[in-house]
Amino acid sequence: MSVTSDEVDVTRARPGADLAGARVVVTGGLGFIGANAVHRLVEIGASVVVVDALVPHHGGDPANLDELAPGLIEVVVADIADGAAADAVRGADVVLNIAGQVSHLDSMERPLVDLELNVRSHVAFLESVRRVAPEAAVVQTSTRQVYGRPQYLPVDEDHPTHPIDVNGIDKLACEQFHLLYGTRYNLRTTVLRLTNVYGPRQHLGREGLGFLPVFVRQALLGEDIVLFGDGTQRRDCVHVDDVVDALVLAALTADAPGEIFNLGHEDALTLDEIAHLTQLAAGQGGGIRTVPWPEDLVPIDIGSFHGDFAKAKRVLGWAPRIAFRDGIRSTIDHYIDRSWSPSST
Amino acid sequence: MSVTSDEVDVTRARPGADLAGARVVVTGGLGFIGANAVHRLVEIGASVVVVDALVPHHGGDPANLDELAPGLIEVVVADIADGAAADAVRGADVVLNIAGQVSHLDSMERPLVDLELNVRSHVAFLESVRRVAPEAAVVQTSTRQVYGRPQYLPVDEDHPTHPIDVNGIDKLACEQFHLLYGTRYNLRTTVLRLTNVYGPRQHLGREGLGFLPVFVRQALLGEDIVLFGDGTQRRDCVHVDDVVDALVLAALTADAPGEIFNLGHEDALTLDEIAHLTQLAAGQGGGIRTVPWPEDLVPIDIGSFHGDFAKAKRVLGWAPRIAFRDGIRSTIDHYIDRSWSPSST
Repeated sequence: MSVTSDEVDVTRARPGADLAGARVVVTGGLGFIGANAVHRLVEIGASVVVVDALVPHHGGDPANLDELAPGLIEVVVADIADGAAADAVRGADVVLNIAGQVSHLDSMERPLVDLELNVRSHVAFLESVRRVAPEAAVVQTSTRQVYGRPQYLPVDEDHPTHPIDVNGIDKLACEQFHLLYGTRYNLRTTVLRLTNVYGPRQHLGREGLGFLPVFVRQALLGEDIVLFGDGTQRRDCVHVDDVVDALVLAALTADAPGEIFNLGHEDALTLDEIAHLTQLAAGQGGGIRTVPWPEDLVPIDIGSFHGDFAKAKRVLGWAPRIAFRDGIRSTIDHYIDRSWSPSST
Repeated sequence: MSVTSDEVDVTRARPGADLAGARVVVTGGLGFIGANAVHRLVEIGASVVVVDALVPHHGGDPANLDELAPGLIEVVVADIADGAAADAVRGADVVLNIAGQVSHLDSMERPLVDLELNVRSHVAFLESVRRVAPEAAVVQTSTRQVYGRPQYLPVDEDHPTHPIDVNGIDKLACEQFHLLYGTRYNLRTTVLRLTNVYGPRQHLGREGLGFLPVFVRQALLGEDIVLFGDGTQRRDCVHVDDVVDALVLAALTADAPGEIFNLGHEDALTLDEIAHLTQLAAGQGGGIRTVPWPEDLVPIDIGSFHGDFAKAKRVLGWAPRIAFRDGIRSTIDHYIDRSWSPSST
């Protein structure tokens, strides 16, 4: 773990102690980021309720919470638009609204499904929250996809929003609904725009969830990592533990509601560097190959991306603590320790 | 009718002759703007198909086309998401996609309905269009609502989009879907962002459709026009005939697809001026009263708005031809000629 900020004391304990005893609802809590948030919240001593629809092929997996002692948390298997979700949210202190469809490719193939999962269900959910938990701090996870192809780097929150796929359009609308319910109904809503996230409990078995789980899978299997283009595109990958920090800080910071925060990382590595570090961490002998961009993916090639997270640092006191070199090693170790195999995802 | 532009020859005939014989589908064709477009298209000699769901209380009214000779056009009463709409669109040369929910208040009260009518049905419709009319020029009517409260005036197309109500969020998503289907599937989609529109066939009987129909109704009834605030806010009202010009030009201009165009008017009048001119045109003795902004409307008070339509002028050769002073008189005459009464709306 490396120090990545001059201004944020990253040697102190991970944030969130103030959530001890708080009632925290995590939507999408059986998925990658959600499950990692749940683990942290349980450590902190929060009272956690998970709402997850377990939409097939969307990354939610009850096994993500297997390591928690039985009975420690409540799990409601329901769509966030359902009454069961409203019941779960009643009286919540904090709602981490992480549920959503994340695959760009799926969103293009089934645009109405993406609209349902990333917009309609969230509008229904916000209607529930304002009715049954109007005091809750609500943190929504959005995505850098809303920016589309960067007009400048690093991308700050004032960068124009020009989504280039269905997923980006829907996530942007979802953000706007969260902020609207803040201004109009005084819900304490905060939006976090995530960049590429990696770490334990990410679904490795499926295409379309971003390049990082594919790289990890290929490295674990000793296969070559296949890069589209020349591998010089840059990404600022953020470890899920750092994302959970941001979720917790957004829920606890008085000035956060009504605001949008980019997450990001000082280190914008090339895809080639990311692939090399991943293979190095896995040590299974896989190499790296570059191939031309597949024709059907050219329209979603946004070039390099690097998020400016100065606002999150200033307002939330957030900075990523984990360098990719370290984070990818512990991630790989996580899967090796659990004897990951393609059939286990 | 007054000349309002140095660069666009507004003495020439209204545009659209090139659409003679073309198959043109008008969604929302029984509503205010749609019906006016249909009248123009019939004059031009286009082959017109109307698709309108006649959603109750949304402004669609078969009487809007009563003055057309029977059998002159085809009317399909269907939601644009339905198969009947897909059948209607098959082989279309032009699609004027005007269908939508326009009431801000309704959108806040029933956000899921607005999402359905302004986003979901349009995504389904675009899926139909790309399947059965991939060559069609598609023009979507959006709204200045997507900008929210102006950060500067006049507002050009580069102004950030910060919708402040459900309707604005949904219309912005609808735009983005239209443009996405352009870039990804080569649909020839163009977006027009309308400002306040007035003219014949506007539904006068219902609140929530903007201030202009309310002003016209109050003036026709000899009632006082009630202004919120001090009446100094400015609006650039555009006559529906000028809007129809823009629709036709957008459909006929090779460089239009993929672009967003503001409509607007050089004359940004205060609400007080607009009210005075409306009362003057009606001559029914009504006055003007100002009252404080109702508390529930304060959040949607965007201050003055004035659209910059230089891009539409440059690319489409469009400029508004009708000064408000003239347009409001002919609008009032339209209703008086037809013996309008509150029960007739």
